[in-house]
Amino acid sequence: MMGSGVFAGIFDIDEILAKEDIDGVRLGDELVRIGYAGDAPVNDHKPESYFELHIEQGPILEAEGNTIGVVTAAQGQRWYEITVTGQVSHAGPKPMAHRKDALVVASAIVSEVNRIGHAYPPNACATVGFMQVSPNSRNVIPGSVFLTIDFQHPDNNTLSDMDSKIKAFCTQIIDDTGVQVDVVDFWHFPPTPFDKDCVAALREGAVAHGYAHMDIVSGAGHDAAYLNSVAPAGMIFIPCEDGISHNETENVSLRDCAAGCNVLLHAGLARVKKQLENYCLRLCVRLFGNPRSSRSVL
Amino acid sequence: MMGSGVFAGIFDIDEILAKEDIDGVRLGDELVRIGYAGDAPVNDHKPESYFELHIEQGPILEAEGNTIGVVTAAQGQRWYEITVTGQVSHAGPKPMAHRKDALVVASAIVSEVNRIGHAYPPNACATVGFMQVSPNSRNVIPGSVFLTIDFQHPDNNTLSDMDSKIKAFCTQIIDDTGVQVDVVDFWHFPPTPFDKDCVAALREGAVAHGYAHMDIVSGAGHDAAYLNSVAPAGMIFIPCEDGISHNETENVSLRDCAAGCNVLLHAGLARVKKQLENYCLRLCVRLFGNPRSSRSVL
Repeated sequence: MMGSGVFAGIFDIDEILAKEDIDGVRLGDELVRIGYAGDAPVNDHKPESYFELHIEQGPILEAEGNTIGVVTAAQGQRWYEITVTGQVSHAGPKPMAHRKDALVVASAIVSEVNRIGHAYPPNACATVGFMQVSPNSRNVIPGSVFLTIDFQHPDNNTLSDMDSKIKAFCTQIIDDTGVQVDVVDFWHFPPTPFDKDCVAALREGAVAHGYAHMDIVSGAGHDAAYLNSVAPAGMIFIPCEDGISHNETENVSLRDCAAGCNVLLHAGLARVKKQLENYCLRLCVRLFGNPRSSRSVL
Repeated sequence: MMGSGVFAGIFDIDEILAKEDIDGVRLGDELVRIGYAGDAPVNDHKPESYFELHIEQGPILEAEGNTIGVVTAAQGQRWYEITVTGQVSHAGPKPMAHRKDALVVASAIVSEVNRIGHAYPPNACATVGFMQVSPNSRNVIPGSVFLTIDFQHPDNNTLSDMDSKIKAFCTQIIDDTGVQVDVVDFWHFPPTPFDKDCVAALREGAVAHGYAHMDIVSGAGHDAAYLNSVAPAGMIFIPCEDGISHNETENVSLRDCAAGCNVLLHAGLARVKKQLENYCLRLCVRLFGNPRSSRSVL
């Protein structure tokens, strides 16, 4: 989402080009190397609208027996970085009562994140995806743990509740254990409803082709969520086998791909038609001084 | 403890020389490189006895105001390697109810290990020191976690209870979550009481010098625990500042070091004296046919 973020003016282009991967390779250098670094300005055109077709990356469409998900909004997201600082010590002789075990506290945070995720069904998601233990040795009490939290919900108030809960828990556990817990608000992406006309055009496409469909909320970040801030945008989901994504076994059927493409085409044509109608409307006003005549022109 | 383990016949010498560190450097090659690889056979002499002086690596002596810890036994140890296998998926769209999050299960195991450690005060120790999360990415639900457990207790029955508890917990959590948990018994070192005469000689040394002392159980593995299987062995502990060990701030006072050395010397001399007495006893029997005469000879 770096490209769409730069296009939408959310990220600075130089900042993004300077990003390095874990081996220190710069994005800008790699774009030059593979021949993808052009010289056109980033914001030289404004799209009339933007549609995106994507695998659901979740199990809902498959479970409900639907072919098309009409995405009404992108879920809100809050990301945190947490550092737990206890005290390194030998695992053998250090009595339990004298310990400041950073991993015990980090594990309690993981459990609480999971509890919070289950407390707001069915839309809340709460995940600790990354954890690094230090010094990470089998007979040494962990002195520090770094971990990340990903909270998601389509409603911003619920997301704020989840935020308050995890912060209160971390404050309480410092009191209870004497272990330090530092919480950094790394990222807050508020829920983004997609453009109503774009959503309607996609829904009409599904109806026109007779595909089983449902409204759905996107849980992952997508280019459409950034583009939505510079142009009307919408998204289509197609079913994801067993709901498994970010995994080598991720799979979609060719039949569902074709259905998604048909809905995408329908919505694109609807926008073209609407533009044409608007053009004719303006033309009729200019020619006949009467917008109603546009109907007969079309 | 590789050297003492080979000397005591617990490890095979070729197996130990072939051990590699995380960079693939072989122990045997490094001993040659630094000039420490000799050609003398490992088991060419049997020690009369073995004494070891060590920092406590725990807070008990300092807390009790004692200078000398007379170590009566080495704690029993059980080490486990646990692999938790869930299902990798995208953290956003995957609903909480459909997840198989390996880190949530691993964290529950860490909490249970900690509970077990607290359930057998004051001597039980229970630690998860090592944990590796995969794929370890902030918006991916962890698919697998590898972790280690270290259980310690001076009583083997208690250690067996702790063993049963963690295994029952892991079996239960498989049923509850559908996440797979594989437990490998990596290492079992039963509690080792030190030689009574050696322990007595060390205690007498502390008394003779007027040092405040107490009996104590060793929580860490030490060479003396291996040597104890081939010769009478004993250990002395001296206080460890703030109970912190395996940490760069680990510290002992010079005064306590000197006290430990004095007790070590006393116990060594006591063994020499005892050998001399035995020698004289045998001599008198041979010369005079009467062991009582040895007293007048000495």
